[in-house]
Amino acid sequence: MKVFNEATVKNTYHMSDAIQDIEQLFTDMDGIRLDQRIVIPTGDGAKSMLYMPCVHTGRQLGIVKITSITPDNPQHGRPTTQGNIIVTDLETGEHVASLDGSYLTRLRTGALSGIATKYLSRKNTTTLGMIGTGGMAFEQLLANIEVRDIDRVILYNRTIAKAEDFKSRVVEAFPKLTVEVVDDVKQLVEQADIINCQTQSAEPVFDADTIQPGTHINGIGSYRPDMKEIDNRILPKADKVFFDDIEGVKEEAGEIIEANEKGIFKFEDVDGDLKALSLNGTLQRTNDESITVFKCVGAAHFDLAVALGAYERLIQQ
Amino acid sequence: MKVFNEATVKNTYHMSDAIQDIEQLFTDMDGIRLDQRIVIPTGDGAKSMLYMPCVHTGRQLGIVKITSITPDNPQHGRPTTQGNIIVTDLETGEHVASLDGSYLTRLRTGALSGIATKYLSRKNTTTLGMIGTGGMAFEQLLANIEVRDIDRVILYNRTIAKAEDFKSRVVEAFPKLTVEVVDDVKQLVEQADIINCQTQSAEPVFDADTIQPGTHINGIGSYRPDMKEIDNRILPKADKVFFDDIEGVKEEAGEIIEANEKGIFKFEDVDGDLKALSLNGTLQRTNDESITVFKCVGAAHFDLAVALGAYERLIQQ
Repeated sequence: MKVFNEATVKNTYHMSDAIQDIEQLFTDMDGIRLDQRIVIPTGDGAKSMLYMPCVHTGRQLGIVKITSITPDNPQHGRPTTQGNIIVTDLETGEHVASLDGSYLTRLRTGALSGIATKYLSRKNTTTLGMIGTGGMAFEQLLANIEVRDIDRVILYNRTIAKAEDFKSRVVEAFPKLTVEVVDDVKQLVEQADIINCQTQSAEPVFDADTIQPGTHINGIGSYRPDMKEIDNRILPKADKVFFDDIEGVKEEAGEIIEANEKGIFKFEDVDGDLKALSLNGTLQRTNDESITVFKCVGAAHFDLAVALGAYERLIQQ
Repeated sequence: MKVFNEATVKNTYHMSDAIQDIEQLFTDMDGIRLDQRIVIPTGDGAKSMLYMPCVHTGRQLGIVKITSITPDNPQHGRPTTQGNIIVTDLETGEHVASLDGSYLTRLRTGALSGIATKYLSRKNTTTLGMIGTGGMAFEQLLANIEVRDIDRVILYNRTIAKAEDFKSRVVEAFPKLTVEVVDDVKQLVEQADIINCQTQSAEPVFDADTIQPGTHINGIGSYRPDMKEIDNRILPKADKVFFDDIEGVKEEAGEIIEANEKGIFKFEDVDGDLKALSLNGTLQRTNDESITVFKCVGAAHFDLAVALGAYERLIQQ
């Protein structure tokens, strides 16, 4: 078994690869076999282990993503979530690689937003607003930059100092970008062409009434029924609403579950999943005035796409 | 993540360790959390991937055993079953080690027979009969040798040449043992103090009527409802019948399921599981005339015991 740590995977496998590999997988889904993920509590509160297996019989490769959730880790300078992906060659039965799964999870989550942005945001998008500047934010930025000519980024975070830290990181990585931090989310909402939310907020992080025509919203933060970062009053105003994985969103996305319960927006009102958006050109944005929304919770086959893509590039080196 | 291959694990972790660690775990089961194993078909027939997670909250360590079943592998000189165990430190959330799981699975299966033999076979046992000399056999031999003063081993296998090959391996490893191959299983049954069966036979591999008083039987081969290596007519004649894991045997052990269906031996007639046998001295063999039976199908917590034991020894080196 070869072990590829985060630095190695990062050097070899990039956002453009992840977007391409996920869209490629959408054309070749028949061979995918998976099962419900397993969650085992390992301590108090959310402390747990998650196991998400998924195989591709056509490509004869399979993965299992093993994720630990350790809520008190930040107090000790360690990340809350740590992922590892084991790749098995189904042709030989050999367990061939261990890939760092933390970067790959952030990258694939970014790539999902990137695909949504590519097909739902206005082509003349230049300003990206980011609400939440935590662990998932950098790859969300990378994804939007990959598919749109972003020249300005507006950042909002509950703790302003963290937004400033993130700004420094962005400026260092992309010196040509104009990056600003705002202390009132309304300033961001009114100016951004894309609003990308990556918080774990239990309350909406923006006010639906302040959303401008032509805005595209990516919501990737809420992944539990108690998390509701998107103001779900935006959903009936949106011309297009897509979910990365419809069954996953129904079970996990707090603001969408609430919207469905309250009758604000029923699950069946969704325009489709990310696969449909990627493959069917008629589902994409048609005018500059539409409001569009993409809600993402993740699913094992997205992990499969990036893990196999990364593995195949890593072993060719 | 540190990778420990089969040779490294083998050099560090032995049968005596496995027996001790499994019995130790029996005294400390409260912290064990597990979930049903996941099986994903990956091709024709039995070709599949198995995922078995199990954690110990007290020791703050968890494992997942990832097993590939590749039925046509022997045609290509590769093993049908290949296991890998990933160890996670629940204290830090870090995925700390990958251990070869094939040897550890054989070793723990041996250790389970070893524990049964220790408490159920006659103390003056000297002759071990082994039916089936395939991939699991060597560790079954090691286990019985570990707990009893075996000086003679009788081997039977459907394909005699394979029994001869196995004999050579045993003689090389244990030159003081008297090892013989028989072509009639009856010769083995009539002379052996312990009969250890490790076949995947769909039919009984011995005739219950030929079993002598005082014999102990370990059956570790049948792990599917269609596999029935033990002649289940022996069950009502046995003074003591133990299963490694009662729920597992009810679901997987063909000969026991059939016995229960036919009313030959009901599930509830079992004397207990291996944990009870290990912890409760009153359940052990009390006289030299009893026939005793141990049926084993394996369970995730046994893998946990040996994986954590091996891991803890490996990192101390």
